[in-house]
Amino acid sequence: MEKITVSIITIGDELLIGQVIDTNSAWMAQQLNKAGVWVHHRIAVGDVKEDIWQALDEEGKRSDVILITGGLGPTADDITKPLLCDYFGGKMVWHQPTLDHIMYLFEVVFKRTGPMLQRNLNQALVPDVCTVLSNVNGSAPGMLFEKDGKIFISMPGVPHEMKGIMHDHVLPLLKKRYQLPYIAHRTIITFGIGESLIAERIQGWEEALPPFIKLAYLPNYGMVRLRLTANGEKEMVDAKLEEAFTALKELVKHEMVTDEDIPMQEVIGRVLKQQGKTVSTAESCTGGYIAHLITLVPGSSAYFQGSVVSYDNSIKERVLGVQEETIQANGAVSEETVKEMVKGALGLMKTDYAVAVSGIMGPDGGTPEKPVGTVWIAVGNNANIEAKKLHFRFDRGRNIELTAMNALNILRLFMLKNEA
Amino acid sequence: MEKITVSIITIGDELLIGQVIDTNSAWMAQQLNKAGVWVHHRIAVGDVKEDIWQALDEEGKRSDVILITGGLGPTADDITKPLLCDYFGGKMVWHQPTLDHIMYLFEVVFKRTGPMLQRNLNQALVPDVCTVLSNVNGSAPGMLFEKDGKIFISMPGVPHEMKGIMHDHVLPLLKKRYQLPYIAHRTIITFGIGESLIAERIQGWEEALPPFIKLAYLPNYGMVRLRLTANGEKEMVDAKLEEAFTALKELVKHEMVTDEDIPMQEVIGRVLKQQGKTVSTAESCTGGYIAHLITLVPGSSAYFQGSVVSYDNSIKERVLGVQEETIQANGAVSEETVKEMVKGALGLMKTDYAVAVSGIMGPDGGTPEKPVGTVWIAVGNNANIEAKKLHFRFDRGRNIELTAMNALNILRLFMLKNEA
Repeated sequence: MEKITVSIITIGDELLIGQVIDTNSAWMAQQLNKAGVWVHHRIAVGDVKEDIWQALDEEGKRSDVILITGGLGPTADDITKPLLCDYFGGKMVWHQPTLDHIMYLFEVVFKRTGPMLQRNLNQALVPDVCTVLSNVNGSAPGMLFEKDGKIFISMPGVPHEMKGIMHDHVLPLLKKRYQLPYIAHRTIITFGIGESLIAERIQGWEEALPPFIKLAYLPNYGMVRLRLTANGEKEMVDAKLEEAFTALKELVKHEMVTDEDIPMQEVIGRVLKQQGKTVSTAESCTGGYIAHLITLVPGSSAYFQGSVVSYDNSIKERVLGVQEETIQANGAVSEETVKEMVKGALGLMKTDYAVAVSGIMGPDGGTPEKPVGTVWIAVGNNANIEAKKLHFRFDRGRNIELTAMNALNILRLFMLKNEA
Repeated sequence: MEKITVSIITIGDELLIGQVIDTNSAWMAQQLNKAGVWVHHRIAVGDVKEDIWQALDEEGKRSDVILITGGLGPTADDITKPLLCDYFGGKMVWHQPTLDHIMYLFEVVFKRTGPMLQRNLNQALVPDVCTVLSNVNGSAPGMLFEKDGKIFISMPGVPHEMKGIMHDHVLPLLKKRYQLPYIAHRTIITFGIGESLIAERIQGWEEALPPFIKLAYLPNYGMVRLRLTANGEKEMVDAKLEEAFTALKELVKHEMVTDEDIPMQEVIGRVLKQQGKTVSTAESCTGGYIAHLITLVPGSSAYFQGSVVSYDNSIKERVLGVQEETIQANGAVSEETVKEMVKGALGLMKTDYAVAVSGIMGPDGGTPEKPVGTVWIAVGNNANIEAKKLHFRFDRGRNIELTAMNALNILRLFMLKNEA
């Protein structure tokens, strides 16, 4: 079995001054990994000729396949294509199918009426030493070069264009050309327990793992993902991985959210579908973010009815029916208020479950009694409403994320308990 | 003036299999750039001894300062610290201030009652050849090494811990040790015009730019950020940059959202504050995401009252007062429905402006007349309600993002027009 190595080169000044976050590399690495290819090096360089040239040299020595994204746009800050042409010793020629595709995109898909710009047409100019990889989602094609037995593939940096080229060309090509090794992953997601405590609890299990199974801890917003990765001969890998995974699940069963690599909101959706129940949210400090997470899941309309974002107290009172006295006596961030918000949401949106949050996300608005980061979360159905106070110590964005994730987990636990 | 170069090395298998997105590098690059340091190389390697070692060798040759994040957690998958100790030829010793800090964190901040774990205490073990950089937000300290005139700094991968160490130690140290060059940026954000069209329009201006000013186009969700970067002698840079920036603003004035590098929701907030007006949202397909964006801005409670996420039609009718006949005759995704949603939001939440959206985000739910990606957006005040139909061609997440951004821009334009 031939083991291949991949490097990813991302090109663009915007990555090196931090104006954009590189999501492409993560997605590419995910897809490659699923296919049995281990990305072992990722680099980012600016729109600087010498740096790109050097990266091609270095990664060409390091890896079998070099995937390059970025630097192919129609504007003048992009220098990648002519550089690739020089690097691989070609000259620029017109590629008719790409030209046709660009005309089609502009006339039929974008329905642009004005004159076609030369800079758009120029995207059909490609080095004559490359194989063109068609880009159904955009005008800049992918380009495949070969040199000294290594494969270099250049793709645009626009995420959905890169993804299309990966699916249509790159992944099938790698599968066809190489005997890819077998890699398998299993993931458990826990909530509300730190990685140190998990590590302590599972130490004996971890030490007994066979050498071809690796464990990684990935903490994020109150969750820890425990990822097992194994590679080797398929039958043995599958059997041993399953065995290790089953034992690990037993060790963390009380904190386990799911034994699949899916987000919390998808777990919530599955529970609701299974129970045939509906949910609504009443949100103050999260400003609709919990509802947003729930509705990111395709098909969530089957169980999500709606939400009231009661940012101002008058909305809590007028729309959700929270008593004015409740807020006056206890404040908007209080057990009493969030419980009445749940009650209001259940009545207004006629759902089986409702979850409500109210808190102080910062940077301002804290008091000595209720400092920034104080949050009340309530969850309930028509029989029972429970509330919990939490405190976060981070910035506004992170406090909102943590509040939402905790609210979803509290909802999940309530649903599981109240169904039984 | 001494020009320094920085490399960022990010360590962790999770980056190379794509299970997490590297937001740390972007943030670090931003901060360094503001301070006048150009990051010219970024690499990611797995938790593999040889790869980390080689990265230290290569980046040590390439750059003056090498910043390393990740691989310092308390769990067994982290191999960075002993490796750094070997690489710089030291031995591990206890660092008392870190030990004291860990005790303080666990006893006072986390209020953990159980026994302290050895693996937590071990974070106070550091190579005797490093300078310890205290980490106020966590237990793993930063470590500074020097070798052959180069500086290597290792930090934990947890974002807020890394940020604390950057602020407290790394940035002040770089400013103190080096004469940093002067770098200035100016950014314009446009909405609703493609980068090719902008490039065409500003071509003459761009060609006349002095060589020390660079322009970059950063398209994202209907917006294009035009970023000017200049470096050199401060007085001249400032004068010439201002001149170029003023001319560019004039060229794109009709599409310009802002001449600062701030998100759309912050622009909206400023307009509302300036006008002394309030806003609410009525959201179907965006599921609260518009409200979430608005409330990400600190102080948004001054102008944002609330939102009704009317995911189910019954909520549109019962809470927002959309007529049952309106939905029956025109469908939930229609001009009539979104206009009634705006009217309902204005009445229910008593705001000066309201914005409403209804659409089909996919992957299911499309029909031949209303395919996936069809969206109606309405905006209005008590005098006037306008609606617009849009169509997006992407996946669910991207369609939601684009709908929200377009809704905010439509709100912005309406506010500017109706104030005059």
